[in-house]
Amino acid sequence: MSVDFGTVSRRTFLTTTAVALGSTALRVNSASPEERTVGFALVGIGNLSMGQLLPAFAECKLARPVALVSGHPPKAKEQAAKYGIDLKNIYDYDHFDSIKENPAVDVVYIVLPNGMHAEYAIRAAQAGKHVLCEKPMANTPSECQAMIDACRDAQRKLMIAYRLQYEPVTQKAIELARSPEAVGVLKQVTAEGGFSIGDPLQWRLNRKLAGGGSLMDIGIYALQAARYLTGEEPVEVTAISYATPNDPRFKEVEETVEFDLRFESGAVGSCLSSYGFGCNRFRVYGTRGQIQSEPFLSYQGNRLWQGEDRQGDGLAIKQGNHFALEMDHFAQCVLNDEAPKTPGEEGLRDVKIISAIYEASESGTAVKIA
Amino acid sequence: MSVDFGTVSRRTFLTTTAVALGSTALRVNSASPEERTVGFALVGIGNLSMGQLLPAFAECKLARPVALVSGHPPKAKEQAAKYGIDLKNIYDYDHFDSIKENPAVDVVYIVLPNGMHAEYAIRAAQAGKHVLCEKPMANTPSECQAMIDACRDAQRKLMIAYRLQYEPVTQKAIELARSPEAVGVLKQVTAEGGFSIGDPLQWRLNRKLAGGGSLMDIGIYALQAARYLTGEEPVEVTAISYATPNDPRFKEVEETVEFDLRFESGAVGSCLSSYGFGCNRFRVYGTRGQIQSEPFLSYQGNRLWQGEDRQGDGLAIKQGNHFALEMDHFAQCVLNDEAPKTPGEEGLRDVKIISAIYEASESGTAVKIA
Repeated sequence: MSVDFGTVSRRTFLTTTAVALGSTALRVNSASPEERTVGFALVGIGNLSMGQLLPAFAECKLARPVALVSGHPPKAKEQAAKYGIDLKNIYDYDHFDSIKENPAVDVVYIVLPNGMHAEYAIRAAQAGKHVLCEKPMANTPSECQAMIDACRDAQRKLMIAYRLQYEPVTQKAIELARSPEAVGVLKQVTAEGGFSIGDPLQWRLNRKLAGGGSLMDIGIYALQAARYLTGEEPVEVTAISYATPNDPRFKEVEETVEFDLRFESGAVGSCLSSYGFGCNRFRVYGTRGQIQSEPFLSYQGNRLWQGEDRQGDGLAIKQGNHFALEMDHFAQCVLNDEAPKTPGEEGLRDVKIISAIYEASESGTAVKIA
Repeated sequence: MSVDFGTVSRRTFLTTTAVALGSTALRVNSASPEERTVGFALVGIGNLSMGQLLPAFAECKLARPVALVSGHPPKAKEQAAKYGIDLKNIYDYDHFDSIKENPAVDVVYIVLPNGMHAEYAIRAAQAGKHVLCEKPMANTPSECQAMIDACRDAQRKLMIAYRLQYEPVTQKAIELARSPEAVGVLKQVTAEGGFSIGDPLQWRLNRKLAGGGSLMDIGIYALQAARYLTGEEPVEVTAISYATPNDPRFKEVEETVEFDLRFESGAVGSCLSSYGFGCNRFRVYGTRGQIQSEPFLSYQGNRLWQGEDRQGDGLAIKQGNHFALEMDHFAQCVLNDEAPKTPGEEGLRDVKIISAIYEASESGTAVKIA
């Protein structure tokens, strides 16, 4: 069901307007709290939406797909039919702003190329919708700040879709990384995210659309890991970046970035980002012990070990669907008027650090992070 | 038996002077090539000598312990008795130069604190002995160069004791890392060496004796791995270093250094060195595949895997005693008048890079390596 906290209380709205909304996600008998749902519009129907997000709704308790925004109407219709989305809730980009009139849509989930995040997040907020936005939040810190401002001005919630922070393997890793019993004093995090990227024509290799190369897309997972495992913010960064000469994939963006982070406590992060080869692991070293994970950023099957040696598949942790957990978290924030765990400020922080990493690699100097 | 290539051919010497030398390592019937041995004097009887080198001689085919140089006569006598070394072949540092008169000693193996390597290597060469020297070669590039010059002037051989380059797990790793079938184009090496150091009063934590902190002692293994796995020399380095404030161990030297190396081909090395926590692994990423090793620098039990996943204990490789292999290599070079695989120039290269790493971490800038 649809909710709007702009003018009436959530509960009042839920009990007085539910019948009138006509949403496909509407449940007439949803007065009881456990049956409330939140309607999501996905903006951008690429691989992530089709391969992960739309299927994930089946595992959601609160989030429901109610609308699609796409530049490809036939594809949108096909996906809508597949997931029971009302065909009248399909929008193209020209008519996106009319989503304002659609009470079935509570949340707009931005699944567009990075360079389009800011525009659509701001338009969604101005249309009165809560905004869930894929990582990286945007291409630049100023775009991120504009998104935060727009959502604040519209009194809408803003969350960045850092799915790993919502799933139990990562949560267990964070718990152990900060545990004096498991790790002692945390001294070092190494974290690596990379894959060999394919089609040279894809948007991820276009500077305007992607904002950068591997660091924006996959290296950000290594940065996130260094931050959430230490629980600290870096104060200084050094970096080296590289792109294979004459590789058609890397005409506009970097292939590989190594970046080293110095944290306030003295803990150090050594991170790797690549579009040239696959890497997917972190390790936390402390004075007393270590934890390690590999893979750590996959959609499923992530593994976590405590100690130096790897015993089998690691700790037994029920994993769940990352996207379902993430979308339900935001749905719950919307329903209960709570602050999301990974708000716009979290996304801005990463984009600021990423900017500093690029500055460090371009200048060949250590860059302080404010 | 003792050999001296200064004035006569090795073979002539072997067949004409063997009986006259009176060495404990002498074998009167050693005219046949397979029974030749080379006499080693160990300079410095610390943990490495007592725990590794002296026991390793039992597994050597060519190298024999024939003399000890120590500032602790009772300890030297005890060890001499244990390993069948003639008590008259025990020297203290004041009388070290008289080793010149001892034909039983072919090789002087320098196992002293780093800051003493240059002095004793040069004195050994001037005493007419071949020099095997522990890593790091010395505290500074100029000391290294002086050692190279002294050995060249004395026409003595000089080898740095990079034991891993003489043992089969490392050799297999190098083969795979450079294999187009196994790795494709090598893109990245990550390598980490560290342990939590104990007694704050030990020489490794004294700047004058050690030349630096973890990087000199254990990080050098990560640097070596990045170099021997890529088969390339780094052209640029960035680094961050750290020492826990008020930790009595790190008053004079660094605790942890992260350093990133850019190689000529574009391959990148991400290395970690620490006295604060244990780490002992490398991984090589290529366009086609990867190899990984953990531990990679231990005295035994090193493991190597091909591919992303770890199957059991990795590739089945008969390991051997690293020190015995290393000492026998040098003995063979002496016997056959061959150049060692890891000559002084190899040690100098590492010390030059280490100087650049320290410069990069101190200045916060990327440093070019000549």
